[in-house]
Amino acid sequence: MYYHVDGDLVDREDATVHVDDRGFRYGDAAFETCRAYGGEVFLWDRHRERLAETCRLLGMAEAVPEDLQGRIDETLQANGYADAYIRVSVSRGVQSGKLTPGPATDPTVVVYAKPLPRGGGDGENCWETDATVHTVETRRPPESVLPSAAKTHNYLNGILARIELRGTAADEALMCDTEGAVAEGATSNVFFVEEGTLKTPAKGALLPGITRATVLSLAESEGIPVEEGRYRPADIEAADEAFLTNTTWEVRPIATVDGTTVGGGETTRRLSRAYDELVETRCY
Amino acid sequence: MYYHVDGDLVDREDATVHVDDRGFRYGDAAFETCRAYGGEVFLWDRHRERLAETCRLLGMAEAVPEDLQGRIDETLQANGYADAYIRVSVSRGVQSGKLTPGPATDPTVVVYAKPLPRGGGDGENCWETDATVHTVETRRPPESVLPSAAKTHNYLNGILARIELRGTAADEALMCDTEGAVAEGATSNVFFVEEGTLKTPAKGALLPGITRATVLSLAESEGIPVEEGRYRPADIEAADEAFLTNTTWEVRPIATVDGTTVGGGETTRRLSRAYDELVETRCY
Repeated sequence: MYYHVDGDLVDREDATVHVDDRGFRYGDAAFETCRAYGGEVFLWDRHRERLAETCRLLGMAEAVPEDLQGRIDETLQANGYADAYIRVSVSRGVQSGKLTPGPATDPTVVVYAKPLPRGGGDGENCWETDATVHTVETRRPPESVLPSAAKTHNYLNGILARIELRGTAADEALMCDTEGAVAEGATSNVFFVEEGTLKTPAKGALLPGITRATVLSLAESEGIPVEEGRYRPADIEAADEAFLTNTTWEVRPIATVDGTTVGGGETTRRLSRAYDELVETRCY
Repeated sequence: MYYHVDGDLVDREDATVHVDDRGFRYGDAAFETCRAYGGEVFLWDRHRERLAETCRLLGMAEAVPEDLQGRIDETLQANGYADAYIRVSVSRGVQSGKLTPGPATDPTVVVYAKPLPRGGGDGENCWETDATVHTVETRRPPESVLPSAAKTHNYLNGILARIELRGTAADEALMCDTEGAVAEGATSNVFFVEEGTLKTPAKGALLPGITRATVLSLAESEGIPVEEGRYRPADIEAADEAFLTNTTWEVRPIATVDGTTVGGGETTRRLSRAYDELVETRCY
């Protein structure tokens, strides 16, 4: 099993970074999670664009290497993976021991890969059951603390949310912003359906997911009315259907919220099917 | 030059962690910065206690190894350092690719060291000039987002604050909480003196520094009146004296805040001298 570290394919067991790497010292790094279907990275352009945006927000606009897609392809080929999970990390690399980053960046670029069979209608989803969701106390950071559009290695906020689930049956945390409005899951965006309208929290203290944007655009194509707004956890509990989205889960129905049964339904199924058709069209 | 990684002394150039280490992937790690004076780690008990508290807040209460002080001593001895900067990192280690941490932790423990001559009255301070401070827009996270008592590898908030200083002459960022009250510097706590009273932001969206606590206790011994409260940046600009504290800087006068001259003074000097005497008593 191979990873790609700093320009070279390496055996996974030899895939290391220096302890002085700012990615380790400070979580000073950007990342993306992607899926390859049939050897093709799904929506790679959008992932690349968001990775570049994260790097720009971290003051290292030039850090994404030109040949990044080539490195991913090499990694897939070396492992013989067609359907795979891919994670790409771009850290600010090793610099002096000071917190203030120097202007010149020699980034450390890591491509992780592991096999992940195709999900959706024609395959097998990587989640075994619908999601069980609990509302947690940990809040998403406001924009002034960390820009929500930055997908970074500073992931403790989501980890603390998941730790709150210990001792419950839940596998995703429903996180609110500091004002108590629903933001997102620890690693997913949330949607629900009320009287035929698809609803999702408006941009704010949430990572604007690529799967989220794809689902919104598919809803438009399908003629499903959409509303982006501010909601309370109780709105999701009371919904007709609800689901989570992210790159690996794709469209994953929510079984329960804080113990209340919600489940998927016709709209969730339509969007899941449309997503699967898009994967089919783009990658196979 | 040696670091101590995962129980072994290693050449600094070979000091690595696996890219799957959660310290790298998520900044999922606790750390402490310490100083050794004359071969003795100053206030080690307090650093160890705070490290344990951070680990507890991160849901890995048992992660600090019993023999951590021994590892630090070994590192100092192997390098032949008596006066040194020490950083200790405890990451949650390598686990499955999932965000939710497993209950059993096999932590990765790193001891960094580099020579740092004694500062204070009898030595040479590690900062070349008094601090130049600018107020920044980036705000410290509220308690509900990340517990302020946790000193973790999620340091992007401070890095973004320092990046705001690009193009200015400032070397420390003055950060407010989300309500606009002064919290602290990116890597330091802030104090100021007004009509003989020593003032510092009360605990809240700030890391309760060990040097901060030491200075407060020295002020008490010296009979200096102390007030912990909520202040605006303008209060520091208008102060008679102001200084920053952290383990490496010790007591560092603030030359200017947002271009306004403040400077140290008699109270700052008294506390700096008292701090130096404490170092002398404890370590030499």
